[in-house]
Amino acid sequence: MNAENEVVVLGIGGSLRKGSFSKKVLEKAATLMPEGSRLQFADLSKIPIFNADFIRQPEPAVAEFKKLVSDTDGFLIVTPEYNYSVPGYLKNAIDWASVPDNVFAKKTGAIMSSSTGMMGGARAQYHLRQSFVFLDSRIINRPEVIINFVDKKLNEKGEFADENAVKFMRDLLNNLVAEVRTQKSLSK
Amino acid sequence: MNAENEVVVLGIGGSLRKGSFSKKVLEKAATLMPEGSRLQFADLSKIPIFNADFIRQPEPAVAEFKKLVSDTDGFLIVTPEYNYSVPGYLKNAIDWASVPDNVFAKKTGAIMSSSTGMMGGARAQYHLRQSFVFLDSRIINRPEVIINFVDKKLNEKGEFADENAVKFMRDLLNNLVAEVRTQKSLSK
Amino acid sequence: MNAENEVVVLGIGGSLRKGSFSKKVLEKAATLMPEGSRLQFADLSKIPIFNADFIRQPEPAVAEFKKLVSDTDGFLIVTPEYNYSVPGYLKNAIDWASVPDNVFAKKTGAIMSSSTGMMGGARAQYHLRQSFVFLDSRIINRPEVIINFVDKKLNEKGEFADENAVKFMRDLLNNLVAEVRTQKSLSK
Amino acid sequence: MNAENEVVVLGIGGSLRKGSFSKKVLEKAATLMPEGSRLQFADLSKIPIFNADFIRQPEPAVAEFKKLVSDTDGFLIVTPEYNYSVPGYLKNAIDWASVPDNVFAKKTGAIMSSSTGMMGGARAQYHLRQSFVFLDSRIINRPEVIINFVDKKLNEKGEFADENAVKFMRDLLNNLVAEVRTQKSLSK
Repeated sequence: MNAENEVVVLGIGGSLRKGSFSKKVLEKAATLMPEGSRLQFADLSKIPIFNADFIRQPEPAVAEFKKLVSDTDGFLIVTPEYNYSVPGYLKNAIDWASVPDNVFAKKTGAIMSSSTGMMGGARAQYHLRQSFVFLDSRIINRPEVIINFVDKKLNEKGEFADENAVKFMRDLLNNLVAEVRTQKSLSK
Repeated sequence: MNAENEVVVLGIGGSLRKGSFSKKVLEKAATLMPEGSRLQFADLSKIPIFNADFIRQPEPAVAEFKKLVSDTDGFLIVTPEYNYSVPGYLKNAIDWASVPDNVFAKKTGAIMSSSTGMMGGARAQYHLRQSFVFLDSRIINRPEVIINFVDKKLNEKGEFADENAVKFMRDLLNNLVAEVRTQKSLSK
Repeated sequence: MNAENEVVVLGIGGSLRKGSFSKKVLEKAATLMPEGSRLQFADLSKIPIFNADFIRQPEPAVAEFKKLVSDTDGFLIVTPEYNYSVPGYLKNAIDWASVPDNVFAKKTGAIMSSSTGMMGGARAQYHLRQSFVFLDSRIINRPEVIINFVDKKLNEKGEFADENAVKFMRDLLNNLVAEVRTQKSLSK
Repeated sequence: MNAENEVVVLGIGGSLRKGSFSKKVLEKAATLMPEGSRLQFADLSKIPIFNADFIRQPEPAVAEFKKLVSDTDGFLIVTPEYNYSVPGYLKNAIDWASVPDNVFAKKTGAIMSSSTGMMGGARAQYHLRQSFVFLDSRIINRPEVIINFVDKKLNEKGEFADENAVKFMRDLLNNLVAEVRTQKSLSK
């Protein structure tokens, strides 16, 4: 499906608003992918509210999202935190992807979070991790990337740029791609 | 706003699909309200995906939902559990209601959950409770209403009917309405 | 039990090590209690590991702790965070206090956390809150007191001294004592 | 360290009381280990309350526990649930094992829970999982073994005996040992 040994990671996140901070973090992540890998962006903006009556005939945006999760080698979620938990728009996309035929099963993934507050979205990460126990994904443990005060960490072009965070992001992406490669080699 | 001493509780829940089990539980709850109180239903079906760019000019369905939360005396959420957490559609509605001017602040509420599995949606309840710490609502502790195997607990008309659960539901609704009355008396 | 209108809050926390940071925060809290209230310290250092075979004949340190929780008007927990959750030593004391005759039932309490890391023990707070749903206590929502980098916030005497944190601590203690007074007045 | 290809799993759990249900579940698990593996029991009963002043000169029971975690190939925790979370006695042992030199790092483990209630200790499992993110262990996702009404599932000898649970236990132990073998082969 993908170029011989290239690892393709699906980048999931970014709220619908223009100027979304988590989208900026995701865009930065795309530039930090280790050699032999690349980040592809999922578009959540057209995914409707989940309705179980339509899981077998989902709208094109849902079908496309599910296909992308299936066809890529792993995933990276960048989540903000709304009300001390996972934003509804992100959980809604995950809910669609989980039935029927949970496309996250056995996939390897990583989670980052960012927020304008002191906690950097950490609370959303642990709730997401609990969902991925059910979804039976392999979520990388370390390092945790928790970006607080994200609105203060943009450069003059409005891009995310924080040296300290970038170091952790790079480590997490390296660990993610290494685990994806390990799992691919094991399944051969 | 409401009839002199009547307590109006907003019933929030029910997935979009026809035949939603949580909607049936909510409908049952409406019949169990203590004297001098009633349940009013919120309609989440037209609430779009959250977009922070529109929080000051939300669509009518959002504005109406926020007004209902504000105008009623307390709330009752009946939630299913998707992927070991709060369904995206429900969290999405709560996200809209939280900014700006969080309409749940200082409100008294109760949570029930139901699912077709053994856990009865319990995992979703604790994630919701964490959100309501941020939202600064008063959530009733006891009894917890956790309805498992909900699809096996309908009567021949398809209504939710489980004697044991109904007992707990009644106790929780009594506690909810009592606390609403207490808080109203204190704020006079 | 207590002076006519004085509110006595039980201060719970402080790890066993000398120089415990959470003990320093608790000591600071004692100086910030609103007029007409005071903080009394619980001693957890002699509480043994929980053993359900001895819940009816607990060791003196356990019996004393339970009596203190019962006899005081409310409680304040200051917790560090061990392994992203509640320290075993603190959870162990709470476990003893919960059976038989859960002495935390209907009590009003508040939680603060402190740690040397960026998260300030926040993760421990949410796990504790979940325990207090079962224990049926009233836990104050706001403000959350989450003290990060606590080792950098001591004065030359080694006392906890951080202006920003103190402001939040004072607000939380005021809210706690106010709620205790409200609940006392309601139960008359 | 261990016989050539034998996988040794450390069994952690069992409250201090005689007749501990989680100990019975652990004993049952020992009989279900797949070929080429065995369960060794850890003794938590002499581990004192954690005190960070003694992490470098821990008592023998602590040193022995840490050595066992280090020397075995993986671990199986069977936890009850106290107050909707991890029992203090179990968390306390984990706290000792985490500093300095976290002996759980990179270890593969599995979690089961049991309780006399309907929830089967599930709430404790998710709190434990969060701790093991920090501890950087690999915790098996599936199947989750959640044993409710455990006191009703003993045979006439007082041993744990529930066919349905045993099936899930066997699957989890198979998955655990398989993952341990995979990780061992990768680290060669």
